[in-house]
Amino acid sequence: MHQLVLIRHGESQWNLENRFTGWVDVDLTELGRRQAREAGRKLKLAGLGFDVAFTSVLKRAIRTWWLVQDEMDLLWLPTEIDWRLNERHYGALAGLNKAETAAIHGDEQVLRWRRGYDELPPALTRDDPRASFADPRYAQVPPAQIPLTESLRNTVQRVVPVWAQRIAPAIRSGQRVVISAHNNSLRALVKHLDGISDADIMAVDIPNGVPLVYDLDEGLQPLRHYYL
Amino acid sequence: MHQLVLIRHGESQWNLENRFTGWVDVDLTELGRRQAREAGRKLKLAGLGFDVAFTSVLKRAIRTWWLVQDEMDLLWLPTEIDWRLNERHYGALAGLNKAETAAIHGDEQVLRWRRGYDELPPALTRDDPRASFADPRYAQVPPAQIPLTESLRNTVQRVVPVWAQRIAPAIRSGQRVVISAHNNSLRALVKHLDGISDADIMAVDIPNGVPLVYDLDEGLQPLRHYYL
Repeated sequence: MHQLVLIRHGESQWNLENRFTGWVDVDLTELGRRQAREAGRKLKLAGLGFDVAFTSVLKRAIRTWWLVQDEMDLLWLPTEIDWRLNERHYGALAGLNKAETAAIHGDEQVLRWRRGYDELPPALTRDDPRASFADPRYAQVPPAQIPLTESLRNTVQRVVPVWAQRIAPAIRSGQRVVISAHNNSLRALVKHLDGISDADIMAVDIPNGVPLVYDLDEGLQPLRHYYL
Repeated sequence: MHQLVLIRHGESQWNLENRFTGWVDVDLTELGRRQAREAGRKLKLAGLGFDVAFTSVLKRAIRTWWLVQDEMDLLWLPTEIDWRLNERHYGALAGLNKAETAAIHGDEQVLRWRRGYDELPPALTRDDPRASFADPRYAQVPPAQIPLTESLRNTVQRVVPVWAQRIAPAIRSGQRVVISAHNNSLRALVKHLDGISDADIMAVDIPNGVPLVYDLDEGLQPLRHYYL
């Protein structure tokens, strides 16, 4: 049997301010840091160990993992940082307050953007300062793969290959994996693991900073999952 | 031209207590944390950038690098953690106060252990709790390569292969490399880079938390080096 732990980052400044965030590199709040430390303490108390970690390139996920590492005394753990574990790209909504956006575009439209599996928020223009083409952390990514907006389907389409190419092989080889990432990139993984339908995944929410443990069989099929 | 930055970790608790440390995983003091942040601020102010980092598996080096990353807003930088960048293994001296050790073994003997290129401190026994055989961070290391004591020559012999196999190829491929490590593993690198003799390397000391910048030519020969 294998084990996999998913952690959504602790509260970020824009979680607190109720803004769409996506790929904008917002840091944790003080509460977010406490949530991350608490996650580390719970994992340690539960006796869970790891051999390798995966995170996105965004600091709210990386700092969450650092704080977990610190609590578990695992600073030395090999950590793969992969942009494909980033949060869903929220296009031109990034930075906007969700309530203000609803006042402009209407509640129904905002709900569709947030909850429709194929809904694309308005795209960034290529010259928007929020676009990621000049960001050194994406220097090795082919520009055609750098999104200007994403539906959750698009997010799933980039997350599943990280699973297939990097994470699943690590687990199959006997490594105990932890992933520190984001609501939508983790939803993408959960959808893939549990075979959740396009419609039903929209109702799944992963709370900030609470470790989600999966027990997997030899074929990496989930046997059960639970929050710590 | 290429650039390489070496950083010795900030002050550790056992630096402060004047103890032999070696592979014991001692954390930074508050001063050590401030030194690490200051190193990050200097690197940022100097406009130095990085594409990849290397550290040892010891938390004083990793935490130093984390604090540098935090100051430079580079949390996402790929970081290779390699046990071969560890501090020189100090054998059975690990944990002993340097003054107490001198009182027991005599000043001359302690000076030889600290300054003789081929001097081996008394070895740990294989069942000493300080031995690293059961430590998960060395699980992939062949037991015959896990030291029970080391001379500086032994340290050089394990550091030079990391340089040759991992670091030099990264630099040659155009990557800007930073290494966060220890007095003796960095001395080993400096000896190799600058062609310093076995006798002369013992007089080289690398201060805690001060970035040491090397400009290297196309063949990775040093053109100059300076502290920030």
